[in-house]
Amino acid sequence: MTTAQQTAVNPARTVAELQDLRTLTADANGAQRLAWTETWRKARAWLREKLAALPVEVQIDQAGNLWATLRGSSDKELWIGSHIDSVPNGGWLDGCMGVLGALEVLRRVAAEGTPEITVRLVDWADEEGARFGYSLLGSRAASGKLVIDEVRILKDWKGVTVAEALKENGVDMEHMTDAHEQFKNGRAYIEFHIEQGPVLESLNLPLGVVLGTVGLNRKLIKFTGQNAHAGATPMHLRRDPFLAAARFALEVREIAKRHNGVGTNGNVVNVPGIYTAVAKTSEITLDQRHLDADHLAAMLAEAEEAAARIAQEEKVTVEWTHVWHADPRPWHPDLIALATEAVQEEVGTVHHLPSGPLHDATAVAETGIPTIMLFTQSLKGLSHTNDEDTKIEHVEAGVRALDRLVRKTQQWVAQQP
Amino acid sequence: MTTAQQTAVNPARTVAELQDLRTLTADANGAQRLAWTETWRKARAWLREKLAALPVEVQIDQAGNLWATLRGSSDKELWIGSHIDSVPNGGWLDGCMGVLGALEVLRRVAAEGTPEITVRLVDWADEEGARFGYSLLGSRAASGKLVIDEVRILKDWKGVTVAEALKENGVDMEHMTDAHEQFKNGRAYIEFHIEQGPVLESLNLPLGVVLGTVGLNRKLIKFTGQNAHAGATPMHLRRDPFLAAARFALEVREIAKRHNGVGTNGNVVNVPGIYTAVAKTSEITLDQRHLDADHLAAMLAEAEEAAARIAQEEKVTVEWTHVWHADPRPWHPDLIALATEAVQEEVGTVHHLPSGPLHDATAVAETGIPTIMLFTQSLKGLSHTNDEDTKIEHVEAGVRALDRLVRKTQQWVAQQP
Repeated sequence: MTTAQQTAVNPARTVAELQDLRTLTADANGAQRLAWTETWRKARAWLREKLAALPVEVQIDQAGNLWATLRGSSDKELWIGSHIDSVPNGGWLDGCMGVLGALEVLRRVAAEGTPEITVRLVDWADEEGARFGYSLLGSRAASGKLVIDEVRILKDWKGVTVAEALKENGVDMEHMTDAHEQFKNGRAYIEFHIEQGPVLESLNLPLGVVLGTVGLNRKLIKFTGQNAHAGATPMHLRRDPFLAAARFALEVREIAKRHNGVGTNGNVVNVPGIYTAVAKTSEITLDQRHLDADHLAAMLAEAEEAAARIAQEEKVTVEWTHVWHADPRPWHPDLIALATEAVQEEVGTVHHLPSGPLHDATAVAETGIPTIMLFTQSLKGLSHTNDEDTKIEHVEAGVRALDRLVRKTQQWVAQQP
Repeated sequence: MTTAQQTAVNPARTVAELQDLRTLTADANGAQRLAWTETWRKARAWLREKLAALPVEVQIDQAGNLWATLRGSSDKELWIGSHIDSVPNGGWLDGCMGVLGALEVLRRVAAEGTPEITVRLVDWADEEGARFGYSLLGSRAASGKLVIDEVRILKDWKGVTVAEALKENGVDMEHMTDAHEQFKNGRAYIEFHIEQGPVLESLNLPLGVVLGTVGLNRKLIKFTGQNAHAGATPMHLRRDPFLAAARFALEVREIAKRHNGVGTNGNVVNVPGIYTAVAKTSEITLDQRHLDADHLAAMLAEAEEAAARIAQEEKVTVEWTHVWHADPRPWHPDLIALATEAVQEEVGTVHHLPSGPLHDATAVAETGIPTIMLFTQSLKGLSHTNDEDTKIEHVEAGVRALDRLVRKTQQWVAQQP
């Protein structure tokens, strides 16, 4: 901590810049800052103009992430960031609010003179994965966890490969993970984002402290019974796999409630799927999430038990296919405590919540760098749509809380060995 | 009833003829006697060769139905029939067993000399509706209930209209209902068919007496909730229309059981229908059937009540779309009694069951002509597939029971005013 006079952030400027970025990169359908495209590059060029006014070094790492470094007295680094890329037809806040919030706080830090620790703004490349289906591409590459072979085979809807799209942006896919050298002095990472869910709105709170990103299990469950004529088959002779799936879905809800997690059966497909036949098969999707690994595992075990029991009772069979797993990624307890103070000071009330969606923070936290996130309320919980919105005063409160959190974390990092 | 010596039917001949017909009109995928096609005409030409050995007049009516008339002392007519057409890749028994069973019984009647009443074999045209989607075309036309405008607009997968296909077979669609003149002396109709369901097999019975064809209601029910992120939306803030549909399906089963009817939810479609979102809408099909009109109406009312109650509890909305309705069509009580005697004599045990599928008998019964059906057991309840099968001894028992029933019904018709 320097002894320079403390200056204040100007959250109204962040709101104005978000609106400018919208004008620059959105059309009538919403934001079009799809990663690795011309509009995304335009957004970044605009960001670099803003950064040029600050005493920072700007660079693009080997994974395409943009770093703006304000050198401090120490090499120890505090990072503040998010992503400027959007989904097609996206909202005006998802990702870019965190980048422009970080910019505003960086201005404050710079205005106070050389900081004790180094402070870096980071704009991760391709958080959304909207073009190739691979989320957190830039942050995962820089974290060193990316398996390049998993990415090599992906193409967009025009048949363009990841390697080709990245090359257009000066990024060599084969060497993306070399960006990991950026991580060597990272001591803390702060990300500011919209909630993208309904919790804070339901509590009438502008801000919340995030506890981490939840772990998840995705499975496809297939119940197989006996195809039968809807008119010719009495109820007691049926083996209806859809009724098993229906009972299963209702149990999935109870399991989630018991564990204070979430469980979703988003889709079900009956075959043959006609009015006049009891289905032969009913396939149902399962997505369970929890911030705690033990609860997550218990939720899955209980779902497996329920499916087996129901299948036996309904005289159908059941098969499970594994689709996706991610471990829970809780944030650092010290940073949760600092964020709690920051939000308490700004709002007077603190709510803690897990994040259902993954964020670049997840990729950072996987490397062991202490990580924290702040959420602003999302109106109607909407995101990934042009209807995504947050009240202006909530964005502004968020920028002030972010600034408080950065200030506290600057001190915390400085005190770390 | 003449005083001529009683002769016996030869059910083994019926089985042999069914096998001959299979050889003539099936390929490796099953029966191909699709109505109004070359293979169907080939089957009918073969049938006419068989009929040529009998003292009958054979004619095709204005709807394409084939009648073979054995004139009796009285103009009052007893009809025995079914349909020789099949679905594509159909089984070796559906429809044609009833026609060839009728042929065998007609041989017996003819062998006994001029019968007291007139006995007619009828082979209805296009029972299956497999080409144009309109079932019971020939029998509905002859019953006078066909609305020609409903048929005029139909085309097959090659764009051929009903009128064009019928014209190739010498039938003028515009005058199909003139076939109703055939009905003026009809006093009873008997149809012998495979069950196409699992009931008789489950009871280990070769034969059953049919009570009528069930009435049915088909509806499409749409539950609408709130699309929500599967990770970001806590369980208590969800309005999940699929869980409403799941609860509804389970109640539909209970309603059917209470009324001893059937209720089927064959298909469900969630939108967007992905792992990571609570659906916004869930549309579920409903097919309820019952032989009794009051029970059928009550089943529907209870389903409507259940959907409304569940929607309220799940905080979703519900909309109903009407798809199809048919009234129950019970057979004639006197003929049910005669069929009961016939099966009792042949098998020693009688089971009565409704028919879920419609039959040509339904169209006949709608005109008020007393109607009855006998079923043989279907192995695994399969039909409309090459795997359709019935034990040979059950087919033979069926032909004998049909003969007993015809004999009793000849007497019954003779005694009617």
